[in-house]
Amino acid sequence: MITVALPKGSLLKGSIELLKSVGLDFSDFLDPSVRQLEILDRSQQAKGLLVRNYDVPVYVEYGQAQLGMIGYDVLREKRPRVAHLADLGFGGCRMSIAVQATSPYRSVLDLPPHCRVASKFVNCAHDYFQSIDLPVQIVPLYGSVELGPITGMSEAIVDLVATGRTLKENNLVEIETLFETTARLVAHPLSYRINEDGLKDLVDVLRASALAQAA
Amino acid sequence: MITVALPKGSLLKGSIELLKSVGLDFSDFLDPSVRQLEILDRSQQAKGLLVRNYDVPVYVEYGQAQLGMIGYDVLREKRPRVAHLADLGFGGCRMSIAVQATSPYRSVLDLPPHCRVASKFVNCAHDYFQSIDLPVQIVPLYGSVELGPITGMSEAIVDLVATGRTLKENNLVEIETLFETTARLVAHPLSYRINEDGLKDLVDVLRASALAQAA
Repeated sequence: MITVALPKGSLLKGSIELLKSVGLDFSDFLDPSVRQLEILDRSQQAKGLLVRNYDVPVYVEYGQAQLGMIGYDVLREKRPRVAHLADLGFGGCRMSIAVQATSPYRSVLDLPPHCRVASKFVNCAHDYFQSIDLPVQIVPLYGSVELGPITGMSEAIVDLVATGRTLKENNLVEIETLFETTARLVAHPLSYRINEDGLKDLVDVLRASALAQAA
Repeated sequence: MITVALPKGSLLKGSIELLKSVGLDFSDFLDPSVRQLEILDRSQQAKGLLVRNYDVPVYVEYGQAQLGMIGYDVLREKRPRVAHLADLGFGGCRMSIAVQATSPYRSVLDLPPHCRVASKFVNCAHDYFQSIDLPVQIVPLYGSVELGPITGMSEAIVDLVATGRTLKENNLVEIETLFETTARLVAHPLSYRINEDGLKDLVDVLRASALAQAA
């Protein structure tokens, strides 16, 4: 039986809808009264694991799930050893650099060398600033990154931006986009190569359904 | 003005009560309708920052907060450069190793070398297994660590245990306690040494109040 790792949070609804469109119904994960993290789909054909978005690639890498749905941002940040099979189209947002609206910085080239940049995406931030050859000090945070510039701890932040509401509420403005991100389909490389439990067929129908929904 | 970093989650209520006992009222942080992460106490004497528990030592280390309240587990895991000033007594729980109740392991010495151990506390787990000279593979997870043994990804977990309810619900049993943890008072070392804004006096009354509440 195929196991699919699903991410808690903003990509969960889209992931469940896509799986439903190919006959796998994990809607129970959307019911707040259901506390189980491992369930069978309603047709008893596949198993679902509900995990933190950062943990999806871990379960797929170790083969505890053959398939997983996860944001491209997590793939960029964690670089897991999983097969990256399809762009699922939903969950679009962008990884951006933002600064205080009252600051003098209107482009990354205005940022002073060795300034501080707060981020949950330490590797993404590091790679970007290395690519433009600007030495910065990355301050790793776990949440509410917008407090970095507000408290004066950092000149800038690198964070995911969807609607831009959080930035606006905190008087921050975007000055650069690092990359766009959407939900992706990943698989355990060996399971995919040997087509364990018909994994390839499931990947094909998921890919076709994602394309049809995007069209 | 002194800024105090308060941790979201299980230690928040105790932290706010303790600060209230010395005349600093940050109860607004307990009101779910308050979205601000930076507020003044009701007597306008001090500022409060509401951040993720893992971020408390970051704000204190960088001096954006002079004081912080945080679990000993986070201090052990992150080893931040902060002054560790007092055991506040509340928020007691323990860092434990647990395995499936159906497993043959009843002590850490039963665990097979090179087995997998899932944990959010990678450094704590690593240090412990090194101290008993048992080579293990740590699987870093961000949440729901109990899924490690359930899915067969890991033989054991290292996690915080308060009531033991989560372990019981998932048919896991504790086989070892690494250490006990409680809430601690930390300060920015330099601010404490130079007694910025009367920081030492505030630390003294907090310490006395914590001792009185524990008695």
